[in-house]
Amino acid sequence: MKDIIVQKFGGTSVADIEKINHVADVIIKEKENGHDVVVVVSAMGHTTDHLVKLAKSINANPSERELDMLLSTGECVSMSLLTMAIQAKGYKAISYNAAQIGIITENVHTKARIIDIKTDKLRKSLDEGNIIVIAGFQGVTTEGEITTLGRGGSDTSAVAIASALDAQRCDIYTDVEGVYTTDPRIVPNASRLEQISYEEMLELAHAGANVLHPRSVETAKQYKMPLRVRSTFKYDNKGTLILGVEDMEINKPVAGVAADLSQVRIVVCDIPDTPGEAATLFGALAKENISVDMIIQSYARKVSNTNDIAFTINQEDLPKTLEMLELINKELKAGDISYDDNIAKISIIGAGMIDRPGIASTMFQTLADNNINIRMISTSEIKISCLINKEDAQKALKALHDVFNLGCDEIAEVKGTLPDV
Amino acid sequence: MKDIIVQKFGGTSVADIEKINHVADVIIKEKENGHDVVVVVSAMGHTTDHLVKLAKSINANPSERELDMLLSTGECVSMSLLTMAIQAKGYKAISYNAAQIGIITENVHTKARIIDIKTDKLRKSLDEGNIIVIAGFQGVTTEGEITTLGRGGSDTSAVAIASALDAQRCDIYTDVEGVYTTDPRIVPNASRLEQISYEEMLELAHAGANVLHPRSVETAKQYKMPLRVRSTFKYDNKGTLILGVEDMEINKPVAGVAADLSQVRIVVCDIPDTPGEAATLFGALAKENISVDMIIQSYARKVSNTNDIAFTINQEDLPKTLEMLELINKELKAGDISYDDNIAKISIIGAGMIDRPGIASTMFQTLADNNINIRMISTSEIKISCLINKEDAQKALKALHDVFNLGCDEIAEVKGTLPDV
Repeated sequence: MKDIIVQKFGGTSVADIEKINHVADVIIKEKENGHDVVVVVSAMGHTTDHLVKLAKSINANPSERELDMLLSTGECVSMSLLTMAIQAKGYKAISYNAAQIGIITENVHTKARIIDIKTDKLRKSLDEGNIIVIAGFQGVTTEGEITTLGRGGSDTSAVAIASALDAQRCDIYTDVEGVYTTDPRIVPNASRLEQISYEEMLELAHAGANVLHPRSVETAKQYKMPLRVRSTFKYDNKGTLILGVEDMEINKPVAGVAADLSQVRIVVCDIPDTPGEAATLFGALAKENISVDMIIQSYARKVSNTNDIAFTINQEDLPKTLEMLELINKELKAGDISYDDNIAKISIIGAGMIDRPGIASTMFQTLADNNINIRMISTSEIKISCLINKEDAQKALKALHDVFNLGCDEIAEVKGTLPDV
Repeated sequence: MKDIIVQKFGGTSVADIEKINHVADVIIKEKENGHDVVVVVSAMGHTTDHLVKLAKSINANPSERELDMLLSTGECVSMSLLTMAIQAKGYKAISYNAAQIGIITENVHTKARIIDIKTDKLRKSLDEGNIIVIAGFQGVTTEGEITTLGRGGSDTSAVAIASALDAQRCDIYTDVEGVYTTDPRIVPNASRLEQISYEEMLELAHAGANVLHPRSVETAKQYKMPLRVRSTFKYDNKGTLILGVEDMEINKPVAGVAADLSQVRIVVCDIPDTPGEAATLFGALAKENISVDMIIQSYARKVSNTNDIAFTINQEDLPKTLEMLELINKELKAGDISYDDNIAKISIIGAGMIDRPGIASTMFQTLADNNINIRMISTSEIKISCLINKEDAQKALKALHDVFNLGCDEIAEVKGTLPDV
């Protein structure tokens, strides 16, 4: 049995006929290298955005089930076109959607988690000499309902399929050349990382470096599946290898700096200081599948015996969150609820900071030296994040990148469409 | 249990957001009339053509399996958007693709036949108060392979679903106001038929009046399912009711006249006059799923002891047919194979011609009076077809429409996109 390589191609990699043909060549090259190849593909270009826009022009608040039915078509189009392109070049290929394979997810729409992947059909197809092309981003419940995995979910599809097939490696092809120490559009001497650990990548992803979908990195970490982020259009480039910290060759204290401008801070004032209030609040958010990032609870005020709780969520969850807070406030009996979207979260990430004190104070001092006010702080073992005003984000990013010596001598060539910071 | 009405909307009826919203109103009106409503929908506007073009720009001869994978996405888009539109107007609705319901077809790609439709999910959804929206044109094999039913297959989906659910009626909504005695763009005083029998409609459809997919009429006939062809945009109009000849109120000798310009005549010369040669030829065509329409075999020549066989096929099957003829000619040992696409098939149709002699001679005389040469003739119980030169088609259509008194006093208002004749 041959080694299996799983390749994932994003929307910009298959944006038009010419690019689809190029991607077919990349796939065939790996097949010619002697591997069995399984490909996971996203929808072409801006298809998904276009479909969402169509849906919203018909129904301002479309049902999530129907949205999944709609959006899942995008990957089915690119998957069959890519398969035809491979066949045109004289190779055996076959496409499968999630329902046909059995990419089983939980019964949640628009951001379902994969719970099982059947491999019988895939192994049989590989044995028959096929290159397999699979629709990313989608799943199916045990009842046959179509689900999607959330934005960027094709990365997760690829890693989960690689793990289920016990693949040698999962290559995430994209239009950037790898993972950088920070956004090269803002910091021109940002350097490409040769290697990064799952943990660091995970923190980088959560911190706003949207090269990879965080869930895909979690899944890769769980199954110890080596991931390579590499360029579709410069495929001799080595990209960045993401692997276990124990397998890494180098380990700088700080691997990267990231900014996330997509968060909103919500403050719920004057929550009665009785047990269970925080649980009520965050329990309700969890039930609605709203991810909360930073959380700060103030000391209880002696006079009123109340707390303030501040937390951050993603901008797109704001309407749902406010609606939900309105509802549960009858139970909470809190005071004002306010939000602020003029914020940026700046994070430094590095597995090497665990046993090196002074990293946090260097970060805070650097921000202070640049006259940047810190509004919230949160830390994990390998990450320190500060919430600052949006207009200070670029300045902060540059200063921190410099102070931790992350730059290289070259000016990075920025290609493709990096996610917005 | 309420009566079920099945409604089918074609591509032009759901071509854009505005039209989808209008269709949602038509559906809701039937629901408000006290019926359970099941809707079958085609892909939006020219989606299918666009997808075929994309496929062919990638692979001149795309695999039929992958083509089905690709084309089936069109209906999934329109079905979910239509469902969202119904929901936006405050009604419960749910969409299903063919695999989810179990619209089981034979294992043939691009023109599969439906062999079974599961109704459990549909009945349960109706009992829950839903308007159901189903993707037309597509099916699934027992192995989970996605198939399509051929162009216009959504009509067949609708009739088969109506039959499986024992619906009261199946309404085919389209952008024409019903079935006409002939193409009103060519014969301006063509009249809308109030009623027509399945048999007549079937012959009309096969003869080129592409208002309905022939297989849908066959299925309706088999299950005695009343069909109504009606206008999406003038839905107070009664359209044309298609029903059993025994239930018809009126029965003219000739119900309609049609022209089919999409055929090609193929002549295979000098086939040895030994038993089984025709079987070899047409068996091979059937195996490739190529439909043959008219067939004429000449008398065997005494000297060479060979036959000529002429037959007509659809233009789109021409490349496949020529390729196949090349292959089997080693076995047949025939002479020249030639084809002619400068032909038109003109047909007169009427259940009333069975017991009225002289209809055929009137047809031939009328063509002769107009200096139109007849190149092939074929007849059925209720149809007479003549193959003539393409440039004579309009003249023939007008003359026959007149001679059989099919015109009305009004000039038909031609709306929408009638199929080409």
